Amino acid sequence: MKTDGVMLHPLASGDGPEPELMCIFGTGDLGRSLGLRLLQCGYRVVYGSRRPHSCGPLPEGAQVMTHEESARSAKMIFVCVHREHYEFLEKMAPQLERKVVVDLSNNLKKNMYMEANAIYLQRLVPKAAVVKGLNTLSAWALQNGLLAGRQVYLCGNNEEAKRDVAEMATKLGLTVVDKGSLSAAKEVEDFPLQLFPEWRMPLYVAFGLSAFFFLYLVIRDIVYAYVENDEDISYRIMISLANKITPVVSLIMLALCYLPGAIAGFLQLYRGTKYSRFPNWLDRWMLCRKQLGLLALGFALLHVIYSLISPARYSDRQRVISNVKKNTTTPLYFDNTSAWRNDSLYALGILSFFLFVLLGLTSLPSVGGTLSWREFSFVQSTLGYLTLLLSTAHCYIYAWDRFLRKSTYKWYTPPDSMLCLIVPSVTLVLKLILVLPCVNRPLMRIRQGWERNRPKDEMGELKATNM
Amino acid sequence: MKTDGVMLHPLASGDGPEPELMCIFGTGDLGRSLGLRLLQCGYRVVYGSRRPHSCGPLPEGAQVMTHEESARSAKMIFVCVHREHYEFLEKMAPQLERKVVVDLSNNLKKNMYMEANAIYLQRLVPKAAVVKGLNTLSAWALQNGLLAGRQVYLCGNNEEAKRDVAEMATKLGLTVVDKGSLSAAKEVEDFPLQLFPEWRMPLYVAFGLSAFFFLYLVIRDIVYAYVENDEDISYRIMISLANKITPVVSLIMLALCYLPGAIAGFLQLYRGTKYSRFPNWLDRWMLCRKQLGLLALGFALLHVIYSLISPARYSDRQRVISNVKKNTTTPLYFDNTSAWRNDSLYALGILSFFLFVLLGLTSLPSVGGTLSWREFSFVQSTLGYLTLLLSTAHCYIYAWDRFLRKSTYKWYTPPDSMLCLIVPSVTLVLKLILVLPCVNRPLMRIRQGWERNRPKDEMGELKATNM
Amino acid sequence: MKTDGVMLHPLASGDGPEPELMCIFGTGDLGRSLGLRLLQCGYRVVYGSRRPHSCGPLPEGAQVMTHEESARSAKMIFVCVHREHYEFLEKMAPQLERKVVVDLSNNLKKNMYMEANAIYLQRLVPKAAVVKGLNTLSAWALQNGLLAGRQVYLCGNNEEAKRDVAEMATKLGLTVVDKGSLSAAKEVEDFPLQLFPEWRMPLYVAFGLSAFFFLYLVIRDIVYAYVENDEDISYRIMISLANKITPVVSLIMLALCYLPGAIAGFLQLYRGTKYSRFPNWLDRWMLCRKQLGLLALGFALLHVIYSLISPARYSDRQRVISNVKKNTTTPLYFDNTSAWRNDSLYALGILSFFLFVLLGLTSLPSVGGTLSWREFSFVQSTLGYLTLLLSTAHCYIYAWDRFLRKSTYKWYTPPDSMLCLIVPSVTLVLKLILVLPCVNRPLMRIRQGWERNRPKDEMGELKATNM
Repeated sequence: MKTDGVMLHPLASGDGPEPELMCIFGTGDLGRSLGLRLLQCGYRVVYGSRRPHSCGPLPEGAQVMTHEESARSAKMIFVCVHREHYEFLEKMAPQLERKVVVDLSNNLKKNMYMEANAIYLQRLVPKAAVVKGLNTLSAWALQNGLLAGRQVYLCGNNEEAKRDVAEMATKLGLTVVDKGSLSAAKEVEDFPLQLFPEWRMPLYVAFGLSAFFFLYLVIRDIVYAYVENDEDISYRIMISLANKITPVVSLIMLALCYLPGAIAGFLQLYRGTKYSRFPNWLDRWMLCRKQLGLLALGFALLHVIYSLISPARYSDRQRVISNVKKNTTTPLYFDNTSAWRNDSLYALGILSFFLFVLLGLTSLPSVGGTLSWREFSFVQSTLGYLTLLLSTAHCYIYAWDRFLRKSTYKWYTPPDSMLCLIVPSVTLVLKLILVLPCVNRPLMRIRQGWERNRPKDEMGELKATNM
Repeated sequence: MKTDGVMLHPLASGDGPEPELMCIFGTGDLGRSLGLRLLQCGYRVVYGSRRPHSCGPLPEGAQVMTHEESARSAKMIFVCVHREHYEFLEKMAPQLERKVVVDLSNNLKKNMYMEANAIYLQRLVPKAAVVKGLNTLSAWALQNGLLAGRQVYLCGNNEEAKRDVAEMATKLGLTVVDKGSLSAAKEVEDFPLQLFPEWRMPLYVAFGLSAFFFLYLVIRDIVYAYVENDEDISYRIMISLANKITPVVSLIMLALCYLPGAIAGFLQLYRGTKYSRFPNWLDRWMLCRKQLGLLALGFALLHVIYSLISPARYSDRQRVISNVKKNTTTPLYFDNTSAWRNDSLYALGILSFFLFVLLGLTSLPSVGGTLSWREFSFVQSTLGYLTLLLSTAHCYIYAWDRFLRKSTYKWYTPPDSMLCLIVPSVTLVLKLILVLPCVNRPLMRIRQGWERNRPKDEMGELKATNM
Repeated sequence: MKTDGVMLHPLASGDGPEPELMCIFGTGDLGRSLGLRLLQCGYRVVYGSRRPHSCGPLPEGAQVMTHEESARSAKMIFVCVHREHYEFLEKMAPQLERKVVVDLSNNLKKNMYMEANAIYLQRLVPKAAVVKGLNTLSAWALQNGLLAGRQVYLCGNNEEAKRDVAEMATKLGLTVVDKGSLSAAKEVEDFPLQLFPEWRMPLYVAFGLSAFFFLYLVIRDIVYAYVENDEDISYRIMISLANKITPVVSLIMLALCYLPGAIAGFLQLYRGTKYSRFPNWLDRWMLCRKQLGLLALGFALLHVIYSLISPARYSDRQRVISNVKKNTTTPLYFDNTSAWRNDSLYALGILSFFLFVLLGLTSLPSVGGTLSWREFSFVQSTLGYLTLLLSTAHCYIYAWDRFLRKSTYKWYTPPDSMLCLIVPSVTLVLKLILVLPCVNRPLMRIRQGWERNRPKDEMGELKATNM
């Protein structure tokens, strides 16, 4: 323990007890990174290895022993070993009796084994308190100290063992979420194998809408031109069509992001209380609003770049030249209304995109985390609806008077700009109704805990709990 | 406490005492989220409710009792109840004696009540130690574990009570700022109701400048064209004018972001010390530099998109066509100087925007936090001045030789590109003077603690404290 | 200690001992900010000052004493004083005996002194336990509570002193990295003076490539046109050339970001193990992949803006007009292949830029930190290779059939679009080989710990440690 002759041993050592000893089985990447972090947080660390003398570089300050010795010396053992090699733990059951054994293992695929790793481990060492958890941490995050505030899951049958592990995890800067008994181990083990689960539904919606409008536009634009006018404009698929699909999908998804909130408002008004749960589909819809909005922002960004690149396109330039060539003598007619309309279209588009980017920035965890409650709700609600309003107006100006022209309804189908206005218009109308004073006032009261159908004497208690 | 027959009770439980019990009054969103987080951090939680048997879903592991019982069992009580329902606490004064009572309440508006909620609460339960605080946390942030490093405010008359609360908050991962005695409660309660207070002044500046230049340009461009040439070019308001206002405001605000630093340097040189405080207006100006810069970046982004959309505009295309039509026979004259000037204009604009985006990225909390002190000062000072220099040059190239042409001074007014060059030019000249070796050397000495008017023998001490 | 008559002293004070007292020498910015943070974390703070009665504003709650008194009262002393003023500490050696003395000092330049500040300090007070560290924290970060999860370095000869400091730092929310004995002090002191060390090599590569392609293109384009055709197209340097350099450098650097991973794969296959270390150059290359990628993204962004601004350029507009003027009578020929090719070029460019921006966003610490291991590897590997594939395809479409035309090889040199395809093509081919099932299977086994040349009985142990 003494490292330097000059230094004096008892200095400041009367304060606390010897730091706790943690045992780690497995000297792979994860084992080494975990040990490093434990050492940095003031724990002592011992590695258990079958051959303690040839196990590669370990963090400075850690000891190495045989599995048996190391298990005996510590009260908490971290198992950083693949499930296939768990058998050796069965022989160590006596040494692991009454110890906290933390299973950090992950599988390569879902459902590789019938039984969760942690339950299998508990079967091997029935007298140890197996806790499943921390398995979402990567060696990379551990080494780079990217743990602050990160959520980890724990589960286990022994409450005290879980509490010990939770305490240790909190010291490492983690936020612990208790998932209950070991029967949740399968779920906990599936977490790191998830691939953007909360993005799945919004991505399906985005792909579905894109596919629908792609087919719709291919038929209405490309096939129609080929069949009716014998013109091959298939090259438009790459940019012109994409630049019609992206804004349409973006606008619809932005509206879908605000529609469930409006529906929830009407539901609360109808039920007269905020205490009954929403139907399941609405709950799930509400939970993926952020993802819907971010996907809409991605589509909007694509739409912006597609639009900006337009004048540089070969087809666009040829069109300008052919326009000039058609007649070179008649003076040009400058239509002021067209200029106004065109410039308003662009100005509204730019402003709504700008606000949309602001919304996106505040959804960054490090930016959103610094906002107060009122600021967050101002940005997400007021700015959000303003963005929806501006982009819907942008689309209305684009549609303009086309709905009056017969040529718009090729093969009797409505244009995409008309179809995509339905959802945002409905959303805005619903919101408009909700902000009318006569509707807004009862809704606010309901959201503050008031209930229409409660006997009056119960209100005191209920109102007392609604913060 | 025993949850599973297999598990052994005393395992690892000799270590610490029973975890502390926290009491929460109120089972609304905030109360439930707070309880969940407390449980996750290893506390035990009991809810106080008037009717403990019918109070909705509570976090797993929490108990529910009557208000009286729960208050008796815990040393710290969190009041998550609206102020209107505080009366019941008065009857509980005996149970709350010598307890720490944390008031988390917020009001819906500023100045709803004369008296701060916490002071009112302290009056109701005079023998309890009321601590106001944590009220900036939302139920949403508590549930999602977004607490790491977040600042919360505490105030209260009892130092020990405050320290207990601060310790609990630190365990939750929060950073505590002590605002003093309970007389600061009003201020603390107003925090979550603030709407971007530090953005207010920069936003006023931005709106003021935009409004001024809007009026100035409407008169100089639109009204002038109508009155003098009988031309209606009002459609230009949407994009052409906006694309003149945004760069002008952006450049001026970027300069305003660096001007106070230069003024402070001259003030320190003049005073010969860094220890006297700056005048109040300069202090406040210095504090909103980040916001000024970010708003300038927003305007610059708008300017970039407005410029890029230009060739796609109806009016722009018509101009190209009409240019061609004017004479179709004379060969085109390609002016090399115009090409150089035009390309330099764009290149400088693009480069300065690129640097500006880099500056903006480093102001993200999660990016700026990873920079060392020298890196941060390199980015914010060196890169910042380079951005200002490039964008000022961009504007000078735009202005070019127009100041020599008579047609520039419509109705004897200078063009906007001339007006907007004043502040950045002054800022750059001041900075240039400050980096001259003969000026920079004494300034550096002053900034390291040297003082011109101090007796020599005092210097040792003062220099010893200037890190 | 009693602050209010109403409050009762023993309330909740039986829990813990008196909070620890920390002593700070130096009342400058750093000293004051550190004291503030320590107070907020529940420590008591005393400042040591030569003249305790006139040392400016200190954080509320801190005491001030003479250096001697303050040192005597605390066990840990923070030295926030410039190295030039360390002499006074020599006289205080008796008071500092057996104390933990934390040296937070930084120098203004590297190698200002032969000896590290902390080693000099240890010489002055040989019986104190000097710990060097926390010197990367700025007063600004301390005041604003931006410490959560931040890494700080510690070194010192006394293990217990280091552990005490580490514990204190952990309470402040910092992540501590132990750099060993005091001989590492120089290294620790050089940290805050570093200027983007991990960006240096990628920046050199970027500048080198840019300079090479700049010269290459100036000669091939500008000089060639002047010498062979007697044309002055020097204005193209500002944008046309820049718009050739940026995509070329961006594509090469993006490929350089994925090449080392592919090389590493082949090396592991060849060696038959993952346990032997990579050669040094490969290790260093792997470590700067993130920076290479971000620089490539920067160049890509410039390329996008340069491309979008093109149609607004004077030279571009003149070209359109001159094209029209050349012949005004013959009808325009619209080439469908050109339209397809041109639109595909833009579409691929836009999509790859879009994916590239997504990659960049996930490299933000606050975004990347929320991803699970599988998500992170999906984004960085799958999406990354997709970006490389799309942008390489973008470049192939740009090159198209030019390699068949004689006019392409001006002065017998290949065009830049051909040169820049070499590295990405090689990278993609290597990756393609690695994902072939017959190559991928053994590689996966090696990465899971299998070794080709190990005796079979040793495998159990080694496989047991490879998580």
